Amino acid sequence: MLTTQQLRYAQTRAHDYLNRAGIVLTPEEADHIEVADFGLGELETIGLELVVYINTERVCAKELVLFPRQICPEHRHPPIGDDPGKEETFRCRWGTVYLYVEGEATTNPAARLPVGHEHTYTVRHEIVLQPGQQYTIPPNTWHWFQAADEGAIVSEFSTRSRDEFDIFTDPQIRRATIIQ
Amino acid sequence: MLTTQQLRYAQTRAHDYLNRAGIVLTPEEADHIEVADFGLGELETIGLELVVYINTERVCAKELVLFPRQICPEHRHPPIGDDPGKEETFRCRWGTVYLYVEGEATTNPAARLPVGHEHTYTVRHEIVLQPGQQYTIPPNTWHWFQAADEGAIVSEFSTRSRDEFDIFTDPQIRRATIIQ
Repeated sequence: MLTTQQLRYAQTRAHDYLNRAGIVLTPEEADHIEVADFGLGELETIGLELVVYINTERVCAKELVLFPRQICPEHRHPPIGDDPGKEETFRCRWGTVYLYVEGEATTNPAARLPVGHEHTYTVRHEIVLQPGQQYTIPPNTWHWFQAADEGAIVSEFSTRSRDEFDIFTDPQIRRATIIQ
Repeated sequence: MLTTQQLRYAQTRAHDYLNRAGIVLTPEEADHIEVADFGLGELETIGLELVVYINTERVCAKELVLFPRQICPEHRHPPIGDDPGKEETFRCRWGTVYLYVEGEATTNPAARLPVGHEHTYTVRHEIVLQPGQQYTIPPNTWHWFQAADEGAIVSEFSTRSRDEFDIFTDPQIRRATIIQ
Protein backbone atom coordinates (compact mmCIF):
# COMPACT_ATOMS: atom_id res chain seq x y z
CA MET A 1 0.00 0.00 0.00
CA LEU A 2 1.30 3.44 -0.99
CA THR A 3 0.06 6.89 -0.09
CA THR A 4 -0.62 9.29 -2.94
CA GLN A 5 2.37 11.29 -1.72
CA GLN A 6 4.68 8.25 -1.87
CA LEU A 7 3.38 7.45 -5.34
CA ARG A 8 3.98 10.98 -6.64
CA TYR A 9 7.44 11.14 -5.10
CA ALA A 10 8.45 7.80 -6.66
CA GLN A 11 7.05 8.89 -10.05
CA THR A 12 9.01 12.16 -9.97
CA ARG A 13 12.17 10.40 -8.91
CA ALA A 14 11.80 7.74 -11.63
CA HIS A 15 11.26 10.48 -14.19
CA ASP A 16 14.49 12.15 -13.02
CA TYR A 17 16.37 8.90 -13.59
CA LEU A 18 14.92 8.56 -17.09
CA ASN A 19 15.88 12.15 -17.88
CA ARG A 20 19.40 11.47 -16.73
CA ALA A 21 19.57 8.57 -19.20
CA GLY A 22 18.20 10.74 -22.02
CA ILE A 23 14.94 8.77 -22.25
CA VAL A 24 12.07 11.06 -23.18
CA LEU A 25 8.50 10.53 -22.01
CA THR A 26 5.36 12.38 -23.04
CA PRO A 27 3.76 14.38 -20.19
CA GLU A 28 0.95 11.78 -20.08
CA GLU A 29 3.44 8.94 -19.69
CA ALA A 30 5.30 10.81 -16.94
CA ASP A 31 2.00 11.30 -15.06
CA HIS A 32 1.26 7.59 -15.24
CA ILE A 33 4.57 5.98 -14.30
CA GLU A 34 3.58 2.75 -12.57
CA VAL A 35 4.96 2.24 -9.08
CA ALA A 36 4.95 -1.35 -7.77
CA ASP A 37 5.50 -1.98 -4.07
CA PHE A 38 4.43 -5.64 -4.39
CA GLY A 39 2.13 -5.15 -1.42
CA LEU A 40 5.03 -5.20 1.03
CA GLY A 41 5.12 -1.49 1.92
CA GLU A 42 8.93 -1.34 1.60
CA LEU A 43 9.14 0.41 -1.76
CA GLU A 44 12.70 1.71 -1.32
CA THR A 45 13.95 -1.86 -0.80
CA ILE A 46 11.50 -4.04 -2.72
CA GLY A 47 9.86 -2.22 -5.58
CA LEU A 48 9.95 -1.17 -9.20
CA GLU A 49 8.93 1.80 -11.34
CA LEU A 50 7.64 1.08 -14.84
CA VAL A 51 6.73 2.89 -18.02
CA VAL A 52 4.67 0.61 -20.26
CA TYR A 53 5.09 1.81 -23.83
CA ILE A 54 2.99 -0.86 -25.47
CA ASN A 55 1.29 -4.08 -24.44
CA THR A 56 -0.72 -5.76 -27.18
CA GLU A 57 -1.78 -9.40 -27.57
CA ARG A 58 1.64 -10.10 -29.08
CA VAL A 59 4.26 -7.56 -27.97
CA CYS A 60 5.16 -5.59 -24.88
CA ALA A 61 7.87 -2.97 -24.29
CA LYS A 62 8.63 -1.15 -21.04
CA GLU A 63 11.27 0.86 -19.28
CA LEU A 64 12.01 -0.36 -15.77
CA VAL A 65 13.51 2.08 -13.27
CA LEU A 66 15.22 0.80 -10.15
CA PHE A 67 16.36 3.15 -7.41
CA PRO A 68 19.69 2.38 -5.70
CA ARG A 69 19.63 -1.24 -4.45
CA GLN A 70 15.90 -1.56 -5.15
CA ILE A 71 14.89 -5.17 -5.87
CA CYS A 72 12.29 -6.66 -8.15
CA PRO A 73 11.47 -9.82 -6.19
CA GLU A 74 11.75 -13.38 -7.46
CA HIS A 75 9.00 -14.48 -9.82
CA ARG A 76 8.19 -16.38 -13.00
CA HIS A 77 5.72 -15.98 -15.85
CA PRO A 78 3.76 -19.23 -16.17
CA PRO A 79 2.07 -20.68 -19.27
CA ILE A 80 -1.51 -19.50 -19.76
CA GLY A 81 -3.58 -21.61 -22.12
CA ASP A 82 -1.74 -21.83 -25.44
CA ASP A 83 0.78 -19.20 -24.36
CA PRO A 84 4.03 -20.80 -23.07
CA GLY A 85 4.50 -17.80 -20.75
CA LYS A 86 6.11 -14.40 -21.12
CA GLU A 87 9.54 -14.28 -22.73
CA GLU A 88 11.57 -11.24 -21.62
CA THR A 89 14.75 -9.57 -22.77
CA PHE A 90 16.29 -7.12 -20.30
CA ARG A 91 18.63 -4.53 -21.79
CA CYS A 92 20.49 -2.30 -19.37
CA ARG A 93 20.40 1.34 -20.48
CA TRP A 94 21.89 3.13 -17.49
CA GLY A 95 23.51 2.12 -14.20
CA THR A 96 24.18 -1.48 -13.30
CA VAL A 97 21.73 -4.29 -12.65
CA TYR A 98 22.39 -7.62 -10.97
CA LEU A 99 20.10 -10.24 -12.49
CA TYR A 100 19.61 -13.68 -10.96
CA VAL A 101 18.34 -16.65 -12.92
CA GLU A 102 18.17 -20.43 -12.64
CA GLY A 103 21.55 -22.17 -12.85
CA GLU A 104 24.68 -22.68 -10.78
CA ALA A 105 24.75 -20.37 -7.75
CA THR A 106 27.33 -17.60 -8.05
CA THR A 107 29.89 -17.42 -5.25
CA ASN A 108 29.92 -13.99 -3.60
CA PRO A 109 27.01 -12.45 -5.53
CA ALA A 110 26.83 -8.66 -5.67
CA ALA A 111 23.18 -8.31 -4.62
CA ARG A 112 22.16 -7.55 -1.05
CA LEU A 113 19.12 -9.49 0.06
CA PRO A 114 16.45 -7.58 1.98
CA VAL A 115 16.54 -8.47 5.65
CA GLY A 116 13.77 -10.86 6.65
CA HIS A 117 13.07 -11.84 3.03
CA GLU A 118 16.27 -13.77 2.24
CA HIS A 119 14.50 -17.13 1.91
CA THR A 120 12.28 -15.79 -0.91
CA TYR A 121 15.31 -15.41 -3.23
CA THR A 122 16.11 -18.95 -4.31
CA VAL A 123 17.83 -18.65 -7.71
CA ARG A 124 21.37 -17.37 -7.38
CA HIS A 125 23.03 -17.52 -10.81
CA GLU A 126 24.25 -13.96 -11.33
CA ILE A 127 24.31 -11.98 -14.57
CA VAL A 128 25.74 -8.45 -14.31
CA LEU A 129 24.33 -6.03 -16.88
CA GLN A 130 26.02 -2.74 -17.71
CA PRO A 131 24.64 -0.25 -20.27
CA GLY A 132 24.36 -1.95 -23.66
CA GLN A 133 24.33 -5.45 -22.19
CA GLN A 134 21.24 -7.64 -22.24
CA TYR A 135 19.91 -11.05 -21.29
CA THR A 136 16.88 -13.07 -22.41
CA ILE A 137 14.82 -14.94 -19.82
CA PRO A 138 12.90 -17.98 -21.09
CA PRO A 139 9.22 -18.31 -20.16
CA ASN A 140 8.29 -19.83 -16.82
CA THR A 141 11.78 -19.59 -15.28
CA TRP A 142 12.55 -17.97 -11.94
CA HIS A 143 14.35 -14.62 -11.88
CA TRP A 144 14.86 -11.50 -9.78
CA PHE A 145 17.06 -8.43 -10.04
CA GLN A 146 18.53 -5.59 -8.04
CA ALA A 147 20.12 -2.29 -9.06
CA ALA A 148 23.61 -1.44 -7.91
CA ASP A 149 24.34 1.61 -5.75
CA GLU A 150 23.49 4.26 -8.36
CA GLY A 151 20.22 2.63 -9.51
CA ALA A 152 19.46 1.34 -13.01
CA ILE A 153 17.28 1.68 -16.05
CA VAL A 154 16.41 -1.47 -17.98
CA SER A 155 14.45 -1.76 -21.22
CA GLU A 156 12.21 -4.81 -21.32
CA PHE A 157 11.22 -6.31 -24.68
CA SER A 158 8.74 -9.15 -24.29
CA THR A 159 5.65 -10.97 -25.34
CA ARG A 160 2.39 -9.79 -23.83
CA SER A 161 2.49 -8.82 -20.13
CA ARG A 162 -0.19 -10.24 -17.90
CA ASP A 163 1.19 -9.30 -14.50
CA GLU A 164 -1.84 -10.69 -12.70
CA PHE A 165 -0.69 -14.23 -13.58
CA ASP A 166 2.90 -13.77 -12.33
CA ILE A 167 3.94 -16.20 -9.62
CA PHE A 168 6.15 -14.89 -6.80
CA THR A 169 8.25 -16.97 -4.44
CA ASP A 170 7.17 -14.78 -1.52
CA PRO A 171 3.54 -15.67 -0.73
CA GLN A 172 3.04 -12.25 0.90
CA ILE A 173 3.44 -10.48 -2.43
CA ARG A 174 0.50 -8.89 -4.21
CA ARG A 175 1.46 -7.57 -7.66
CA ALA A 176 -1.24 -4.91 -7.83
CA THR A 177 -0.28 -1.76 -5.93
CA ILE A 178 -2.99 -0.26 -3.74
CA ILE A 179 -2.93 3.51 -3.46
CA GLN A 180 -4.37 4.75 -0.19
CA MET B 1 25.26 -2.49 -53.42
CA LEU B 2 27.60 -0.81 -50.96
CA THR B 3 31.37 -0.71 -50.83
CA THR B 4 33.02 -1.73 -47.58
CA GLN B 5 34.05 1.90 -47.17
CA GLN B 6 30.44 3.12 -47.55
CA LEU B 7 29.30 0.49 -45.07
CA ARG B 8 31.91 1.48 -42.47
CA TYR B 9 31.18 5.17 -42.90
CA ALA B 10 27.42 4.64 -42.46
CA GLN B 11 28.03 2.45 -39.39
CA THR B 12 30.27 5.07 -37.78
CA ARG B 13 27.81 7.83 -38.55
CA ALA B 14 24.87 5.82 -37.17
CA HIS B 15 26.86 5.12 -34.01
CA ASP B 16 27.49 8.87 -33.63
CA TYR B 17 23.72 9.51 -33.81
CA LEU B 18 23.06 6.84 -31.17
CA ASN B 19 25.72 8.33 -28.90
CA ARG B 20 24.11 11.74 -29.27
CA ALA B 21 20.82 10.23 -28.08
CA GLY B 22 22.55 8.55 -25.12
CA ILE B 23 21.90 5.04 -26.48
CA VAL B 24 24.76 2.73 -25.54
CA LEU B 25 25.90 -0.18 -27.71
CA THR B 26 28.42 -2.87 -26.93
CA PRO B 27 31.54 -2.75 -29.15
CA GLU B 28 30.26 -5.90 -30.92
CA GLU B 29 26.90 -4.27 -31.66
CA ALA B 30 28.62 -1.14 -32.97
CA ASP B 31 30.74 -3.26 -35.32
CA HIS B 32 27.65 -4.97 -36.70
CA ILE B 33 25.24 -2.08 -37.29
CA GLU B 34 23.16 -3.17 -40.26
CA VAL B 35 23.09 -0.80 -43.22
CA ALA B 36 20.24 -1.26 -45.70
CA ASP B 37 20.41 0.42 -49.11
CA PHE B 38 17.45 -1.60 -50.41
CA GLY B 39 19.50 -2.46 -53.48
CA LEU B 40 19.03 1.01 -54.94
CA GLY B 41 22.53 2.38 -54.36
CA GLU B 42 21.20 5.71 -53.05
CA LEU B 43 21.84 5.14 -49.36
CA GLU B 44 21.81 8.81 -48.35
CA THR B 45 18.30 9.18 -49.79
CA ILE B 46 16.73 5.73 -49.49
CA GLY B 47 18.24 3.71 -46.70
CA LEU B 48 18.19 2.75 -43.07
CA GLU B 49 20.68 1.83 -40.33
CA LEU B 50 19.60 -0.79 -37.79
CA VAL B 51 20.74 -2.29 -34.52
CA VAL B 52 18.88 -5.54 -33.89
CA TYR B 53 18.86 -6.15 -30.14
CA ILE B 54 16.80 -9.31 -30.18
CA ASN B 55 14.82 -11.31 -32.73
CA THR B 56 13.35 -14.53 -31.40
CA GLU B 57 10.38 -16.57 -32.65
CA ARG B 58 8.11 -14.24 -30.68
CA VAL B 59 9.70 -10.84 -30.06
CA CYS B 60 11.94 -8.38 -31.88
CA ALA B 61 13.45 -5.07 -30.76
CA LYS B 62 15.64 -2.73 -32.80
CA GLU B 63 16.93 0.79 -32.97
CA LEU B 64 16.47 2.41 -36.37
CA VAL B 65 18.76 5.28 -37.31
CA LEU B 66 17.80 7.64 -40.14
CA PHE B 67 20.20 10.25 -41.45
CA PRO B 68 18.74 13.65 -42.39
CA ARG B 69 15.85 13.12 -44.84
CA GLN B 70 16.74 9.45 -45.29
CA ILE B 71 13.68 7.33 -46.22
CA CYS B 72 12.70 3.78 -45.37
CA PRO B 73 10.70 2.95 -48.51
CA GLU B 74 7.07 1.82 -48.59
CA HIS B 75 6.48 -1.79 -47.59
CA ARG B 76 4.24 -4.17 -45.67
CA HIS B 77 4.77 -7.30 -43.58
CA PRO B 78 2.50 -10.01 -45.00
CA PRO B 79 1.02 -13.02 -43.19
CA ILE B 80 3.25 -16.10 -43.26
CA GLY B 81 1.52 -19.38 -42.42
CA ASP B 82 -0.23 -19.00 -39.06
CA ASP B 83 1.49 -15.65 -38.42
CA PRO B 84 -0.78 -12.69 -39.32
CA GLY B 85 2.33 -10.64 -40.19
CA LYS B 86 4.69 -8.46 -38.21
CA GLU B 87 3.14 -5.94 -35.82
CA GLU B 88 5.39 -2.93 -35.19
CA THR B 89 5.42 -0.08 -32.73
CA PHE B 90 7.69 2.83 -33.64
CA ARG B 91 8.77 5.06 -30.78
CA CYS B 92 10.72 8.18 -31.64
CA ARG B 93 13.73 8.63 -29.35
CA TRP B 94 15.57 11.50 -30.99
CA GLY B 95 14.91 13.92 -33.87
CA THR B 96 11.67 13.90 -35.83
CA VAL B 97 10.22 11.22 -38.06
CA TYR B 98 7.44 11.56 -40.60
CA LEU B 99 5.55 8.27 -40.78
CA TYR B 100 3.03 7.49 -43.53
CA VAL B 101 0.34 4.87 -43.19
CA GLU B 102 -2.91 3.84 -44.85
CA GLY B 103 -5.75 6.34 -44.42
CA GLU B 104 -6.81 9.75 -45.65
CA ALA B 105 -4.00 11.51 -47.49
CA THR B 106 -2.53 14.44 -45.56
CA THR B 107 -2.60 17.79 -47.34
CA ASN B 108 0.89 19.30 -47.55
CA PRO B 109 2.83 16.41 -46.03
CA ALA B 110 6.26 17.18 -44.57
CA ALA B 111 8.18 14.39 -46.33
CA ARG B 112 10.15 14.98 -49.51
CA LEU B 113 9.79 12.16 -51.99
CA PRO B 114 12.97 10.96 -53.70
CA VAL B 115 13.10 12.15 -57.30
CA GLY B 116 12.22 9.41 -59.77
CA HIS B 117 10.66 7.21 -57.08
CA GLU B 118 7.57 9.29 -56.24
CA HIS B 119 5.11 6.72 -57.61
CA THR B 120 6.40 4.06 -55.19
CA TYR B 121 5.06 6.01 -52.18
CA THR B 122 1.31 5.41 -52.30
CA VAL B 123 0.08 5.79 -48.71
CA ARG B 124 0.02 9.41 -47.60
CA HIS B 125 -1.61 9.61 -44.18
CA GLU B 126 1.00 11.44 -42.10
CA ILE B 127 1.91 10.82 -38.45
CA VAL B 128 4.61 13.11 -37.05
CA LEU B 129 6.62 11.56 -34.23
CA GLN B 130 8.75 13.62 -31.86
CA PRO B 131 10.81 12.10 -29.02
CA GLY B 132 8.50 10.17 -26.67
CA GLN B 133 5.77 9.77 -29.28
CA GLN B 134 4.93 6.42 -30.83
CA TYR B 135 2.60 4.69 -33.26
CA THR B 136 1.62 1.05 -33.78
CA ILE B 137 1.36 -0.34 -37.31
CA PRO B 138 -0.98 -3.30 -37.77
CA PRO B 139 0.32 -6.35 -39.67
CA ASN B 140 0.16 -6.36 -43.46
CA THR B 141 -0.52 -2.61 -43.85
CA TRP B 142 1.54 -0.28 -46.05
CA HIS B 143 3.89 2.21 -44.42
CA TRP B 144 7.04 4.24 -45.02
CA PHE B 145 8.90 6.91 -43.11
CA GLN B 146 11.42 9.70 -43.48
CA ALA B 147 13.54 11.61 -40.95
CA ALA B 148 13.30 15.37 -40.78
CA ASP B 149 16.33 17.61 -41.42
CA GLU B 150 18.33 16.58 -38.34
CA GLY B 151 17.79 12.81 -38.74
CA ALA B 152 16.00 10.54 -36.28
CA ILE B 153 16.32 7.56 -34.00
CA VAL B 154 13.31 5.26 -33.65
CA SER B 155 12.93 2.25 -31.37
CA GLU B 156 10.98 -0.57 -32.97
CA PHE B 157 9.15 -3.07 -30.76
CA SER B 158 7.61 -5.89 -32.76
CA THR B 159 6.83 -9.51 -33.30
CA ARG B 160 9.49 -11.58 -35.08
CA SER B 161 11.26 -9.89 -37.99
CA ARG B 162 11.54 -11.85 -41.21
CA ASP B 163 12.76 -9.12 -43.53
CA GLU B 164 13.09 -11.52 -46.44
CA PHE B 165 9.27 -11.73 -46.65
CA ASP B 166 8.69 -7.95 -46.67
CA ILE B 167 6.83 -6.68 -49.71
CA PHE B 168 7.94 -3.33 -51.18
CA THR B 169 5.91 -1.15 -53.51
CA ASP B 170 9.02 -0.48 -55.60
CA PRO B 171 9.74 -3.67 -57.56
CA GLN B 172 13.41 -2.63 -57.91
CA ILE B 173 14.00 -3.02 -54.19
CA ARG B 174 16.01 -5.88 -52.76
CA ARG B 175 15.95 -5.95 -48.95
CA ALA B 176 19.30 -7.73 -48.53
CA THR B 177 22.24 -5.36 -48.83
CA ILE B 178 25.13 -6.60 -50.94
CA ILE B 179 28.57 -5.47 -49.80
CA GLN B 180 31.05 -5.24 -52.64
